[in-house]
Amino acid sequence: MSPIEVSLQAALDALGDPVRRRIVRELAVVPDWTRPCGTFNDLPVAKSTLSHHFAVLRNVGLLEQRDEGTRRLNRLRRAEFDARFPGLLTLVLAEDEG
Amino acid sequence: MSPIEVSLQAALDALGDPVRRRIVRELAVVPDWTRPCGTFNDLPVAKSTLSHHFAVLRNVGLLEQRDEGTRRLNRLRRAEFDARFPGLLTLVLAEDEG
Repeated sequence: MSPIEVSLQAALDALGDPVRRRIVRELAVVPDWTRPCGTFNDLPVAKSTLSHHFAVLRNVGLLEQRDEGTRRLNRLRRAEFDARFPGLLTLVLAEDEG
Repeated sequence: MSPIEVSLQAALDALGDPVRRRIVRELAVVPDWTRPCGTFNDLPVAKSTLSHHFAVLRNVGLLEQRDEGTRRLNRLRRAEFDARFPGLLTLVLAEDEG
């Protein structure tokens, strides 16, 4: 899904979850295609829940994934999402988890 | 509540509701302190639900209210909210309800 087709409602729903915002922040600080899904096991959710979070992020155009061997690698679609929803990702990246 | 004290989570929760975004958009096109709560009866929700929506918007610093006679007048705290969450209100005001 390209962010261009995404509604504000869907974007707000996706980013309304603190675990998804944390995934976004963690991907923002590593190069594209370097962080496999399997390395997010420090998050306080079940593996199936984590898969759901990744799917939601893909569906609003925030995340792109590709398989490489047994690993599923991730890329944050930062520029594309910024172009569609200016400022929104910046707020998420600047968030203090407290 | 001043927006300065509001978390991103609370702001996203408040703006995650389409009726609340519509209230915000309607207030954005009228001068401050001119639109009474009683004039939002075109919205497809019960009066008690509407009161709840106004309370949520007050609690994230988006809305200020004052009573004048029997009317409760509203002001959108646009500049203050913009300063705390740059870009977020702009996305809401530009939203196409489709």
